[in-house]
Amino acid sequence: MSRDADLLADLVVLKAHGTGNDFVVLVDPDDTLVDLAADTVVALCDRHMGIGADGVIRLGGPPAAGAFGEVEVDGAQVAMDYRNGDGRVVEMCGNGIRVSARIAVDHGLVAADAEQVAVATRSGVRIVDLHRGDGVVTGATVDMGPASTVAARIGLDPDVDTADLVLAGIPERHWSAVSMGNPHVVATVDDLDGVDLATLGPTVETHDAFAEGTNVNLVEVDPEGHLRLRTWERGVGETMACGSGTCAAVAALADRGVVDLDEGPVEVEVEVAGGRLVVRRDDRGHLLLTGPAEVVARLDLDPGWLARLA
Amino acid sequence: MSRDADLLADLVVLKAHGTGNDFVVLVDPDDTLVDLAADTVVALCDRHMGIGADGVIRLGGPPAAGAFGEVEVDGAQVAMDYRNGDGRVVEMCGNGIRVSARIAVDHGLVAADAEQVAVATRSGVRIVDLHRGDGVVTGATVDMGPASTVAARIGLDPDVDTADLVLAGIPERHWSAVSMGNPHVVATVDDLDGVDLATLGPTVETHDAFAEGTNVNLVEVDPEGHLRLRTWERGVGETMACGSGTCAAVAALADRGVVDLDEGPVEVEVEVAGGRLVVRRDDRGHLLLTGPAEVVARLDLDPGWLARLA
Repeated sequence: MSRDADLLADLVVLKAHGTGNDFVVLVDPDDTLVDLAADTVVALCDRHMGIGADGVIRLGGPPAAGAFGEVEVDGAQVAMDYRNGDGRVVEMCGNGIRVSARIAVDHGLVAADAEQVAVATRSGVRIVDLHRGDGVVTGATVDMGPASTVAARIGLDPDVDTADLVLAGIPERHWSAVSMGNPHVVATVDDLDGVDLATLGPTVETHDAFAEGTNVNLVEVDPEGHLRLRTWERGVGETMACGSGTCAAVAALADRGVVDLDEGPVEVEVEVAGGRLVVRRDDRGHLLLTGPAEVVARLDLDPGWLARLA
Repeated sequence: MSRDADLLADLVVLKAHGTGNDFVVLVDPDDTLVDLAADTVVALCDRHMGIGADGVIRLGGPPAAGAFGEVEVDGAQVAMDYRNGDGRVVEMCGNGIRVSARIAVDHGLVAADAEQVAVATRSGVRIVDLHRGDGVVTGATVDMGPASTVAARIGLDPDVDTADLVLAGIPERHWSAVSMGNPHVVATVDDLDGVDLATLGPTVETHDAFAEGTNVNLVEVDPEGHLRLRTWERGVGETMACGSGTCAAVAALADRGVVDLDEGPVEVEVEVAGGRLVVRRDDRGHLLLTGPAEVVARLDLDPGWLARLA
């Protein structure tokens, strides 16, 4: 068997998800699989011949300095080492970090009664507040940092005409540029389900105005003020939920006065295809994203399947 | 917890596949889950919030008379009780039956050294020959029955003009109607990868000429005589492999003299998206389909996930 297969056979392996964004999680507190091969990730994420997932989270122990290159990891209790289904290392995953914090509790990487977990990511250490139901962690709140509605922050070129975005289906003067560290366009629409996002998404994502490409978020606000969101993720396509997109959408609507984040501790609920997410703003201006963290099953990978790993 | 959840917690649950056609398999020799709810099947097959599969196989013990209604189940050692991902009961699954026979051996429903397993399906009892590698069952051969190239057998109406199928992309006089119990159109094409099957498939499937709809199989034969196949499955869409379609394709090509099934025990290899299948014809004129049966993992469903089952 390959080295990865030998090591995988000794780890706890789980399938888990946060609002439908799903992961194979390798519980690796001793950091045996730091060099996880891209081919192994691809094989695990294959939805027909493997387990199937959007990505693989290797949940490591407290990271040593330099574990994530230049990124500060001081004080972290565990590390979320995330790779997309294609094997590429990715900085951050707003749904994956909730799942990581839950599994750190479930599998003894932190105290069973912990209220917070400090999780190292390639975007820095994030403090995750845990929520329990019937004694089990069922969800978590993650500090997603501040939103910036300064257009330049998403690489928007003011010299490029964006009038054709209206033709593409985004209503004129009803779209905002929001940075959550990554670039987002947020547009309000009247009929969310009627939007052909498979056409609109790539048109906007690759528009000349967005130097680095952009995620595309469409929000419908019903008469009672309920928000429903669909997101086209840059380089991925439409997903069941996008954590940073949800925060970007709420920030854009706050900027336009559609929602008010300032009156006391206001929570804004957003319905996405994979469930419900909640956003609030703390007194530092950071957006706090709350959502579920669900485990589907523990997996014992078959020796024959492991033997075919490269 | 629901009744299904209680029972599921006590069963061996596996994820397995045959040439990429994947299944959640419930090993249920005591037939506790005969009344498996459609909602449970849908939840298990959900690729983001469940395990993810094309369907669920409940692998039951030797079926009593009447277990599958009027269908004769005499002499069967196990029963393949198959449901599609949408919860509907389906008669037969050529890839699932190989997987079922393998798991019957792996989990002691038949003798560990069995060479054959008699599997009851809703299409009758099928005898499955097992193939082993390193002592483990890795594949199997299933008698798929005789092919009929009599057009009327697939419900083809001779009074309906099919000239427009040429416009749809199927070359004139290069398509055959084949029944493998279910209806198939088989067409040869020069550039298999260039075909827009997402458009062609539904056009042919729902053509007026086919009273019951039809599966659509496209075959490319290269200069060395190698066969590559893509199948649009009726009611499903393009799949990674279709057992009856593979047999139908070989039968059609034999009918046209492209392959010769009569000279001794000739095996015809067919490459599909999910791997390689082999077809030969026995002296009764039955087509025997050989292919892999692979287990990915054993699953311990999380109590929290089970608790949310209806």
